[in-house]
Amino acid sequence: MMNKYRLMSPGPTPIPPEVSAAGALPIIHHRTPEFGEVFTRVNENLNRVFLTENDIFTCAASGTGAFEGAIQNLFSPGDKVLVVNNGNFGGRWVKMSRAFGLEVTELEYDWGVKADNDEVADALANDPEIKAAICVLSETSTGTVNDIEGFARAATNVVTIVDAVSGLGACTLRTDEWGVDVVVAGSQKALMTPPGLAFVSVSERAMRMHEVSRMPRYYFDWTAAKKAFERDPAQTAWTPAVSLIIQLDVALQQLIDEGVENVFARHVMLGRASREGVKGMGLELFGPDEDPNSAVTAAWVPEGIDGKQLVRMVFREHGIQVAGGQGALAGRIFRIGHCGYFDAFDIIATIAATELALESLGYPLEIGKGVGATQRVFSKSGVRA
Amino acid sequence: MMNKYRLMSPGPTPIPPEVSAAGALPIIHHRTPEFGEVFTRVNENLNRVFLTENDIFTCAASGTGAFEGAIQNLFSPGDKVLVVNNGNFGGRWVKMSRAFGLEVTELEYDWGVKADNDEVADALANDPEIKAAICVLSETSTGTVNDIEGFARAATNVVTIVDAVSGLGACTLRTDEWGVDVVVAGSQKALMTPPGLAFVSVSERAMRMHEVSRMPRYYFDWTAAKKAFERDPAQTAWTPAVSLIIQLDVALQQLIDEGVENVFARHVMLGRASREGVKGMGLELFGPDEDPNSAVTAAWVPEGIDGKQLVRMVFREHGIQVAGGQGALAGRIFRIGHCGYFDAFDIIATIAATELALESLGYPLEIGKGVGATQRVFSKSGVRA
Repeated sequence: MMNKYRLMSPGPTPIPPEVSAAGALPIIHHRTPEFGEVFTRVNENLNRVFLTENDIFTCAASGTGAFEGAIQNLFSPGDKVLVVNNGNFGGRWVKMSRAFGLEVTELEYDWGVKADNDEVADALANDPEIKAAICVLSETSTGTVNDIEGFARAATNVVTIVDAVSGLGACTLRTDEWGVDVVVAGSQKALMTPPGLAFVSVSERAMRMHEVSRMPRYYFDWTAAKKAFERDPAQTAWTPAVSLIIQLDVALQQLIDEGVENVFARHVMLGRASREGVKGMGLELFGPDEDPNSAVTAAWVPEGIDGKQLVRMVFREHGIQVAGGQGALAGRIFRIGHCGYFDAFDIIATIAATELALESLGYPLEIGKGVGATQRVFSKSGVRA
Repeated sequence: MMNKYRLMSPGPTPIPPEVSAAGALPIIHHRTPEFGEVFTRVNENLNRVFLTENDIFTCAASGTGAFEGAIQNLFSPGDKVLVVNNGNFGGRWVKMSRAFGLEVTELEYDWGVKADNDEVADALANDPEIKAAICVLSETSTGTVNDIEGFARAATNVVTIVDAVSGLGACTLRTDEWGVDVVVAGSQKALMTPPGLAFVSVSERAMRMHEVSRMPRYYFDWTAAKKAFERDPAQTAWTPAVSLIIQLDVALQQLIDEGVENVFARHVMLGRASREGVKGMGLELFGPDEDPNSAVTAAWVPEGIDGKQLVRMVFREHGIQVAGGQGALAGRIFRIGHCGYFDAFDIIATIAATELALESLGYPLEIGKGVGATQRVFSKSGVRA
């Protein structure tokens, strides 16, 4: 039987039809008032979604590129940095910081465990030479969302860098209110745009740190980015990914129309429904069962079931692309992404397909129980499902 | 009167309707056999267009990002490099090389003058410590195309790096036959794809140089790129710009269907027609009147005419976006891009519009003379126009 393709991975994520259609518009020249008008509106709307008045620089890259830019622009070789590592992406920050010659104090936690912000405060108090602290908002590898408000409060004396690539727009992040200096994000998750754009918001304090940094850089250089950004109309230093920015413009307008706070609330509901569905099937959640985990739901593959086969079957038999585990968790967990353009029925379909696949694989479960648990989350909130 | 929008700038450039349409396809997950099939075909076709059997790494970035990658991956701080600089982009390589702590021997020429490969050979003979030589294929800022075959022969003892961002696919570049080690290119010119993808082809000799390089890097790291490239199916190290790669697949197929040698020949005709049109209007070409200059035609703005006003009028009155001059040539030259998805009638329309605009600005010319000269180029070759 024909199945529609449903992308339920933690990234890239599906995009709204209006954003798709904008991807087919003609390419326009970027050094023109026409492109300037689009880019100015994009910048204003990015500020609304990042909840910051800081400058936000856009570059053609995936999230890892803007990560690298933050390291290159803030530090000098030998500088000390604190990195919280409780997943694949925290681990990437550690490796990248070391690749650029930084001295890393690593706060390591088991995957799925939230960072302890008291330990962040202690580590910074113990070493006043540490210049900045890095933490991931939503660990895509595990679904765990760190408490960034507490992190920023614990690290108030240093420059704070938050990797929000997979969380921005899905998990509440009040950049200015919480005092986060640098936020890195990407286009392909809750911003509902194809992959290929990365963003970084930079506070005045971070910009002052940048001014004395001596790390070699060029493509991601914030001074070049700021100079182009301050032109009238705003530009990028190098050729922008024109079509992706035109798509982003449409996507951001949709987020603004929905209301940024409503977008956060929707993701909380999606996460809750997804977790209830997993539990309803009799499976165990990986990581804490709590509302901030609104971007990705991770679950243990039950005893006796091959996790890779489960993910493959959900896709081959039902057209729904969920993700397996990364690193040591490969084959042991599966992950449902709901960070971006997702609604109640996407979660219901995913839980329904997982139930069907588990039944085929011989796992004992009562078909419909997980789906019912999912529906009840929306029913309670007044959403019909 | 309504005018269609015609993008005749040297980049970004217009894209075929089939490539536009592919930009509206659903986003698919990149760690799947489905994406792997597309990416494998893209890689095979890139080899056909680059005319090389070397590995070609694709990243989400604009051309400048892959430039930076070449510097980061090949050198260690303090290494010596020869850079040919006869335009805006040659100048960028000089700045970038210095930003990464390289010791630069700069061979500087006036804008519009071709590099002298005897001087390249002399400079390398005079300093055996120079490890690599860098040259731009087509200087977008001036339309001048350097003799890369001669450059590679002059620099045979060192690693050769060619910036083909604006020339690849439009100007003949026989990577393997000429022995070019590293070729950097972008998606948004003759590859007929939106901006946002950059490519680098790497010879075995360059890969050996990479292995001993000690420059800090992460996002553009060739070791990570090669590791992902060698998986089955081939992947990228970081999240690829999925939609752009799907569009590139369509565009490359069109280039292969046309025939790479035919694509080069078409560009030679477009350049010739554009230059004849400029001369037919009584204007003077900027740079040599020769066939290799097949990507961009640059012309002096005639005495008494405001070049910025001319470019603006061609766009506002006639919908055709040509480009002005860069740097010291701002307002003094204008540039017609014909690197990519262009045919005879695009050039004819552009010359026609320029004639009309020049007439409006009070420049004495016989309307139709430039267009006639353009047509005769195609007529001689048997193309109806």
